[in-house]
Amino acid sequence: MRRIVIGVMGGGSVSAADAADAYELGRQIALQGWVLLTGGRQAGIMEAASKGAAEHGGTTVGILPNDSDEDLSPHVHIPILTGMGSGRNIINVLTSQAVVACPGGAGTLSEIALALKHGRPVVLLNVETGKVFERYRAGGQLHHATSPEQAMASIRSLVERLDPGR
Amino acid sequence: MRRIVIGVMGGGSVSAADAADAYELGRQIALQGWVLLTGGRQAGIMEAASKGAAEHGGTTVGILPNDSDEDLSPHVHIPILTGMGSGRNIINVLTSQAVVACPGGAGTLSEIALALKHGRPVVLLNVETGKVFERYRAGGQLHHATSPEQAMASIRSLVERLDPGR
Amino acid sequence: MRRIVIGVMGGGSVSAADAADAYELGRQIALQGWVLLTGGRQAGIMEAASKGAAEHGGTTVGILPNDSDEDLSPHVHIPILTGMGSGRNIINVLTSQAVVACPGGAGTLSEIALALKHGRPVVLLNVETGKVFERYRAGGQLHHATSPEQAMASIRSLVERLDPGR
Amino acid sequence: MRRIVIGVMGGGSVSAADAADAYELGRQIALQGWVLLTGGRQAGIMEAASKGAAEHGGTTVGILPNDSDEDLSPHVHIPILTGMGSGRNIINVLTSQAVVACPGGAGTLSEIALALKHGRPVVLLNVETGKVFERYRAGGQLHHATSPEQAMASIRSLVERLDPGR
Repeated sequence: MRRIVIGVMGGGSVSAADAADAYELGRQIALQGWVLLTGGRQAGIMEAASKGAAEHGGTTVGILPNDSDEDLSPHVHIPILTGMGSGRNIINVLTSQAVVACPGGAGTLSEIALALKHGRPVVLLNVETGKVFERYRAGGQLHHATSPEQAMASIRSLVERLDPGR
Repeated sequence: MRRIVIGVMGGGSVSAADAADAYELGRQIALQGWVLLTGGRQAGIMEAASKGAAEHGGTTVGILPNDSDEDLSPHVHIPILTGMGSGRNIINVLTSQAVVACPGGAGTLSEIALALKHGRPVVLLNVETGKVFERYRAGGQLHHATSPEQAMASIRSLVERLDPGR
Repeated sequence: MRRIVIGVMGGGSVSAADAADAYELGRQIALQGWVLLTGGRQAGIMEAASKGAAEHGGTTVGILPNDSDEDLSPHVHIPILTGMGSGRNIINVLTSQAVVACPGGAGTLSEIALALKHGRPVVLLNVETGKVFERYRAGGQLHHATSPEQAMASIRSLVERLDPGR
Repeated sequence: MRRIVIGVMGGGSVSAADAADAYELGRQIALQGWVLLTGGRQAGIMEAASKGAAEHGGTTVGILPNDSDEDLSPHVHIPILTGMGSGRNIINVLTSQAVVACPGGAGTLSEIALALKHGRPVVLLNVETGKVFERYRAGGQLHHATSPEQAMASIRSLVERLDPGR
């Protein structure tokens, strides 16, 4: 009964190519029957992924930094209003069974770090983090992809390995 | 596209009659097409309301105090893991367009107080708070009900008054 | 080495008499050698208590809802910036070994409720909560006072009973 | 009246050399008259820095992930209990006027990222982050040091530049 939730993180201001990748990720997450989680704002990766999922029958959840619907993406079905600013980043990653990180800034990097710390598998889609997370890559928790299709293949394989009772 | 989310709050240890009311509330919220939000634990009002909604085709969201699925109600479709303990109470009320408070303890009372402070309408179902929230009652933000049907009638009337763009 | 921290909660907009009581509470907490904790804003009970403590050699901590020093009381030595809005209320009470609640609104009531839920002793100074917290009064966790002196006497007796290792 | 608060972040399990650096940092922060902020746990960098400061007359604040004093460093004068797990990382950095990051894991990296995102200057003490934060280095917000003395020199220069009214 519990739905599988996949988080897609990334910046609020991104290139058209990265937004197109996020849209495609959202679409494929929806077609897979998973719930899409983003930071919920009407900007960048959050907006594009939510649009891709919502336009293809998916369910979209947004974990908002604000305490109101200001700046809320119109493609989010279930906005979770936290009023906690970046304090909500930990909720994004704890709630996701796996996280795809798209290009972004320091906020996105904080989410990658928190996800790894708390045992969530992370797929980096066209994101280069150098060696800082090397031990997680070696341990099989951190993956790389250069296309939405490749990211989805990684997630599918990760989700299959999840404890089914989880 | 944004779904209407109704929060049902209440204790983790309650009477059979109160649990039955919560189940019925969950059922009616589902039939109305709204999303049910609870504190997500497998206990008391949270469990009963989630069961009532999930068994009648509704979507259930649970805002968990834990950072894992320990203690998670099996009737929650979308568990939001916060790892913030009672720090998550504010998220429960901010995320709900209206809140029904069922019998509970101090935690439930903190949620009633936070909901009122942040402008969310509250319906008390068989809960007596004395005069502490009198100004909110006088201002039309706090309502009383003695049955799930009566609570639902209040919520319907409140939701109709919400800014449609919200 | 760990300092004793006493929280003083209350509204941002209060009567001159209530502000005078909060100032006196702050003064006596400082003279006792305890740290004063408030919500940190330059308003009402928070401002008055911080001023009373700071002007008498005390150390003042403010747990701010904001993520900047906007609205920060000039009498707070150590502002803790949370950026979590009312999400910071739980931090106020968890951090305090005992809480004095002065008159306020729903926010103050949420703090009384959270303090009681999490085992913190609470002294109500000229605050009337009716019967909602009756079981905590019966259990010796909730106390009443009608003057700062009486509130201090209650806190002294409560603090003496604390596990010295705590 | 507002005290300057310097955050020292780093892992819970570190080398003896890194712990010695953190102790020395704490000592120098105390001698400078600043408040030391850490994550408050009795482990690694947090413990060493707090000990260094407390043993030299400084004031130490710890922002705890727990809701109790379990795991609290005995060298923390003012423990702030959040009960928010890693959700407290944002509070660490918002509260600090400048942050020194010592070696650590993903948690420390999340704090570096959050500090940079929220405009706090960061000094990396024997921490190598590769190019992920390059734009912050170029912008003068991110600094490097290879000894506590060098880190302190950076912080002194940063603190002098702070808006005095802040």
